[in-house]
Amino acid sequence: MSAATPRTVTDPAEAADTLAALAERFTAVAAERDHEGTAPFAEVAAFRATGLLPALVPRELGGGGLDWPTVLSALRPVLRADGGLGHLFAYHFVNSWRMQLNENEERFQALQRGLARNHWFWGGAGNPRDAGLALTPVESGAGSGGFTVSGRKFFATGAQVSDRITASGTRVDTGEKLAIVIDATQPGVIHHDDWENNGQRLSASGSVSFEAASVPEENVLGFGGQEGPRYHPYSSLSILFFQLALDHVHVGLAEGALAAAAEYVQTSTKPWSTSGVDRAVDDPYIRELIGDLAAATRAADALTWRATESLTAVADRGWALTDAERGEAAIEIAAAKVVSTKVALDVTSRVFELTGARATGTSYGFDRFWRNARTVTLHDPVAYKAQEVGDHALRGAYPEPSGYS
Amino acid sequence: MSAATPRTVTDPAEAADTLAALAERFTAVAAERDHEGTAPFAEVAAFRATGLLPALVPRELGGGGLDWPTVLSALRPVLRADGGLGHLFAYHFVNSWRMQLNENEERFQALQRGLARNHWFWGGAGNPRDAGLALTPVESGAGSGGFTVSGRKFFATGAQVSDRITASGTRVDTGEKLAIVIDATQPGVIHHDDWENNGQRLSASGSVSFEAASVPEENVLGFGGQEGPRYHPYSSLSILFFQLALDHVHVGLAEGALAAAAEYVQTSTKPWSTSGVDRAVDDPYIRELIGDLAAATRAADALTWRATESLTAVADRGWALTDAERGEAAIEIAAAKVVSTKVALDVTSRVFELTGARATGTSYGFDRFWRNARTVTLHDPVAYKAQEVGDHALRGAYPEPSGYS
Amino acid sequence: MSAATPRTVTDPAEAADTLAALAERFTAVAAERDHEGTAPFAEVAAFRATGLLPALVPRELGGGGLDWPTVLSALRPVLRADGGLGHLFAYHFVNSWRMQLNENEERFQALQRGLARNHWFWGGAGNPRDAGLALTPVESGAGSGGFTVSGRKFFATGAQVSDRITASGTRVDTGEKLAIVIDATQPGVIHHDDWENNGQRLSASGSVSFEAASVPEENVLGFGGQEGPRYHPYSSLSILFFQLALDHVHVGLAEGALAAAAEYVQTSTKPWSTSGVDRAVDDPYIRELIGDLAAATRAADALTWRATESLTAVADRGWALTDAERGEAAIEIAAAKVVSTKVALDVTSRVFELTGARATGTSYGFDRFWRNARTVTLHDPVAYKAQEVGDHALRGAYPEPSGYS
Amino acid sequence: MSAATPRTVTDPAEAADTLAALAERFTAVAAERDHEGTAPFAEVAAFRATGLLPALVPRELGGGGLDWPTVLSALRPVLRADGGLGHLFAYHFVNSWRMQLNENEERFQALQRGLARNHWFWGGAGNPRDAGLALTPVESGAGSGGFTVSGRKFFATGAQVSDRITASGTRVDTGEKLAIVIDATQPGVIHHDDWENNGQRLSASGSVSFEAASVPEENVLGFGGQEGPRYHPYSSLSILFFQLALDHVHVGLAEGALAAAAEYVQTSTKPWSTSGVDRAVDDPYIRELIGDLAAATRAADALTWRATESLTAVADRGWALTDAERGEAAIEIAAAKVVSTKVALDVTSRVFELTGARATGTSYGFDRFWRNARTVTLHDPVAYKAQEVGDHALRGAYPEPSGYS
Repeated sequence: MSAATPRTVTDPAEAADTLAALAERFTAVAAERDHEGTAPFAEVAAFRATGLLPALVPRELGGGGLDWPTVLSALRPVLRADGGLGHLFAYHFVNSWRMQLNENEERFQALQRGLARNHWFWGGAGNPRDAGLALTPVESGAGSGGFTVSGRKFFATGAQVSDRITASGTRVDTGEKLAIVIDATQPGVIHHDDWENNGQRLSASGSVSFEAASVPEENVLGFGGQEGPRYHPYSSLSILFFQLALDHVHVGLAEGALAAAAEYVQTSTKPWSTSGVDRAVDDPYIRELIGDLAAATRAADALTWRATESLTAVADRGWALTDAERGEAAIEIAAAKVVSTKVALDVTSRVFELTGARATGTSYGFDRFWRNARTVTLHDPVAYKAQEVGDHALRGAYPEPSGYS
Repeated sequence: MSAATPRTVTDPAEAADTLAALAERFTAVAAERDHEGTAPFAEVAAFRATGLLPALVPRELGGGGLDWPTVLSALRPVLRADGGLGHLFAYHFVNSWRMQLNENEERFQALQRGLARNHWFWGGAGNPRDAGLALTPVESGAGSGGFTVSGRKFFATGAQVSDRITASGTRVDTGEKLAIVIDATQPGVIHHDDWENNGQRLSASGSVSFEAASVPEENVLGFGGQEGPRYHPYSSLSILFFQLALDHVHVGLAEGALAAAAEYVQTSTKPWSTSGVDRAVDDPYIRELIGDLAAATRAADALTWRATESLTAVADRGWALTDAERGEAAIEIAAAKVVSTKVALDVTSRVFELTGARATGTSYGFDRFWRNARTVTLHDPVAYKAQEVGDHALRGAYPEPSGYS
Repeated sequence: MSAATPRTVTDPAEAADTLAALAERFTAVAAERDHEGTAPFAEVAAFRATGLLPALVPRELGGGGLDWPTVLSALRPVLRADGGLGHLFAYHFVNSWRMQLNENEERFQALQRGLARNHWFWGGAGNPRDAGLALTPVESGAGSGGFTVSGRKFFATGAQVSDRITASGTRVDTGEKLAIVIDATQPGVIHHDDWENNGQRLSASGSVSFEAASVPEENVLGFGGQEGPRYHPYSSLSILFFQLALDHVHVGLAEGALAAAAEYVQTSTKPWSTSGVDRAVDDPYIRELIGDLAAATRAADALTWRATESLTAVADRGWALTDAERGEAAIEIAAAKVVSTKVALDVTSRVFELTGARATGTSYGFDRFWRNARTVTLHDPVAYKAQEVGDHALRGAYPEPSGYS
Repeated sequence: MSAATPRTVTDPAEAADTLAALAERFTAVAAERDHEGTAPFAEVAAFRATGLLPALVPRELGGGGLDWPTVLSALRPVLRADGGLGHLFAYHFVNSWRMQLNENEERFQALQRGLARNHWFWGGAGNPRDAGLALTPVESGAGSGGFTVSGRKFFATGAQVSDRITASGTRVDTGEKLAIVIDATQPGVIHHDDWENNGQRLSASGSVSFEAASVPEENVLGFGGQEGPRYHPYSSLSILFFQLALDHVHVGLAEGALAAAAEYVQTSTKPWSTSGVDRAVDDPYIRELIGDLAAATRAADALTWRATESLTAVADRGWALTDAERGEAAIEIAAAKVVSTKVALDVTSRVFELTGARATGTSYGFDRFWRNARTVTLHDPVAYKAQEVGDHALRGAYPEPSGYS
């Protein structure tokens, strides 16, 4: 990550083109890289080199000034190429953008400037199901303030390959929960390189430990909880962006699998002996099945984009945001989760019925789409997302804000 | 249909409010009217009274000047209330709007002015699977011209309750296929009142016969075919609007069933004996199931609106429209058909698992949602729509324009 | 029901042939009878005339001496012809056979002899979700004993057209729950003829009231509860037979719908315009879809028969039956319920995609299959049946015996 | 394979117990062995040591004298433990048993005696989609006769680890197609060890080449085709046994996945934060989902066993077998294929929704169930199996005998 600082991209079309080109490179080696499964340092460096890391930082702070729909749209080809890398990159944007959901404007603006200047890659360490991180105030004579942070977090997507980590911790003295940013490159941050899972193998989602790592005062952004008297719907938006990012990952995986299968059917699948056709693309069952899968994918995509527009509008409301406005976006995002989960699993499994048996050869690596989909869709149980949508359909209720909703 | 001529609505909000109010009236008697199944003369009169029949006619021709998204959005509550009436009303707009897809601008503008002035209700008689209508030139000494039309059409949605019927016929002398408009109230037009089907009972979709009915010269709009040297992608757009209308019907049916079920669960369903909850709305399986169904409905809806935007933009291209542009819209609409068909059938059948056994009482009429969905989704075989989407996913192909695509 | 007493059938093949012939008659008028929906007095009389009402009564008591698999197999064609009639007939067997699950052998043998002699048709009045029936001891000078019974039961399948009704009531003086048999033809039994539901219209499932109806001592069979110190797995088997009967109803409905659709496709469906085939039976999507539906139906059928064998073996154990043996059968029956519910709904809805739009004409009555399936599958919530199967798969647990399990 | 010759098992219960114990050993290392994916020499040796290789050989020829249901039932635990090994073992039985479908009784009895004596493991080299094998008559002075065989076959399940290979070849001089048995251990048989596929990694399904390998006269069993004047329904039964074996593989994979998931849920899954329960086994959605999956698996299993009984009865008919009898069994087996394919894919993918995200860790190896299911279910396209079932449902047709039906 010590390469020359890239030029920040400010043009939407350039963002799209740049990532499409990068995605093409990723696609070419996707099966191989999935097989290796080593941490994606090179890929993150390539992403950094595009100049897109500060894409969401406002122009006046030195960033790209692009909006969420532009960034998520540009990321889509990466998601199709490798769901793990796409996941990782999307989370960079959420982990860095979420700074502004905090109260201390001066500090997060400084951090945004730092991101714009240094093109930091951003990870997270916020798995709500682990024990929390402990923040111990630094009792320095100089009154320099700040904290040291200790603890371990699993499923810390991106932390291992990041410059900065977003997290929250609890003060050991007061019990106050604070939003913090951690320099990931300091010695007290231990990256375990232990992401050994079936899918999303390039998402760098292993665990990270903090052993009295330093959190200077300027990296403390204020209240970091999801409840209590200081709760505000705006400050709890980050989880909705994570969930929205997952919706995009799901759809991207389905699209990637469909594209790979369509290519294979056209070039390699032999027509079935009793099909009565000369080319596999003329087989009626292949034509119908891919049509069903593509239609379902389009529907999940349309809903995901509607949710994206909804959440973008909600975020634009800033501190004027109401619980009901947040709730409507949360329902749209949850509905997209329910649908995109089903679609991603169904499409990535059934594309093999298009390609036929030989496409199960490991050299093709086509099973990675399902492994990726199966892994990422377990982020949190989809049945409970359906329940949230159901409570709204039944009673007009909104989900209780939490680490997952 | 001889009531006082209503004031034409030009305000989108008024359009929405007016139809929402009308839909509420329809909802209140929907079960009963479905049971009777008599032709919806009164409902069409009520629709006419809203002043919305010429909503799509340009302001400069005396119409409401509203656009398709506004009209379809305003129609949605009617679709939820009664899928048959919504179908009928949506087809009025397609059957009248499609005039402008013809070459003879002077004549269709005159007809649009007539619609704006007289608030005609419009039906169609174009089922492609029947034999065509025969057009015999009128050999009058006065040279008045025009034709008489003869033949019978089934599934002629709206014809029975209409003032004007859109059709196409074939000249008995030259074999030329012409787009025509028929005055539905003349003696030579026989309405058979024979719509006796399981669903969409208020859609007035029975057969109509023409026995040398008059088609004056000014009602002949020019070439009316889907192929040959005079084919143009723009003139073949009508079928896409019919298909899009069906997408909206499907989604509206699902939404209507969900709303009726949610209301019933809240007010009438008793919690299951082993559920451990006091209210049915707290039953985990009811909460999850309605969430799944609502999420699927939202996805179908999002795709239907994306298709609506796509087709609206395509229609705005007029005679500059290309085959590829038409093709992209056709694929989006076909994909929405595939998805909305599944969703409509699934939702309208499974809502009973929310309400429980007592809700099968005929007085509730909840089975009408499935009967409507099952009937309307058979308009043309969904497998072939999937095939079209599949050919595009596999080979980038577009559907061959036809009476169904 | 006052016709000449028929000869009792004792030959399995004759049972099968007789009911197959009867089913053919029912099929011929099924659409019409469904439309009328009047109580099936004539059909029950025809069933009685077959001599099969006492089929399950042992030979030594004058009955047919047939076993459950023979009887259920013979009933299948009736279930295909009309799910409501099949339901009604199957319940006759459960309601009459269940006598022997009681302690008082002398009395139930006497009742079985009565059934064999008089060819009584048997209904039930046991809906567990209604208030219980009240039994008041008859304080007659003559010491004749017995009770009067009062109360109302809904969903009392068969009661309206029956000679005898199986029920249970609670003694008003002691609170004891007793299994009883009620003469359905006495004045104190009021049949409300109020079965006005979407499906199973010929199942005679309306409500019945008892106004101090007489229950003589010889019709009191002893303890009639599902719990407490007198509970025994054998005496609680009746509910499993009802559930098993429903499994057969579900499968029969799917088979009936498939047969009707296959016939229609062969004789009436026109090949689709772009299918490239001359006959609908050669359409690839029709061939595949009916294959999928038929395969699913076969699987549900195979599981239903496995459950039938399991329950028959369990019943043969008599008072030696253990909780675990009952539990294994209960799980098999519940699993068949889960699967057959899905299959019945799916098949009866999707067969229209085989037949095409014209088959929605009310004269065909093809929608009755779905209406029947949708109504009967709501007997009790299928989600809770899945839960029972799940508890067994997870923890080896058996369902708690109850009015539904 | 040169270990001491084992004692032949003749007792059904011993067969079941022995394989259950072996399966337990396989389960313990299944994730690890799947990861390695090396050819299963050790596993085949262990299988040989059970004394079950000649289980199907008649007692009078020195074999175990067990029947197909006994053998397939005993194999089920192996299928649950490792679908690839189960597949391999099941194919051993088909490849060796099918000898008797040939005309030359003396020779196949001699080979069966050889199997009983030597406990040969049997593979196959018959993929119908490859070019055929060439048989060149041996022109030896000694008149020893026989042929040499040349060619290559892919998807040759078991060949690599076998003693004997079943195949068919075409005489280069006369074009006659002959059924042959090849000694797999001779130098002219090259095992490519090239099975590198996503699933069924221990099934030894790579390719095998024959380079003028010897086929002595006594290993030539006669006509080996599926058509022409010498075709007989009995001799074409082998393909139905292969297809039936696949049905069992599918069901075994689903059962194995369910068992592994149930174990994990009980021991490792943490209850979801908003579930309101203390143990994951009490989560309503986990209880319902596993119930749905288990019920579907039971249905596929019941149909597979019905098909097993059907085919066993058909095989017992010997040369008296008719086309219609073969056809009925073929339909039952095809229906089981359609259903078990869906169930295997659905169950092996969805079990992760029971276990939760942590179970995607590669050390658990739970993804192997889906990878196995996805690979094996592609043996031949399931859409065409549905088509076969459909042709029967529509027109009473039977599948054309072929390399797949």
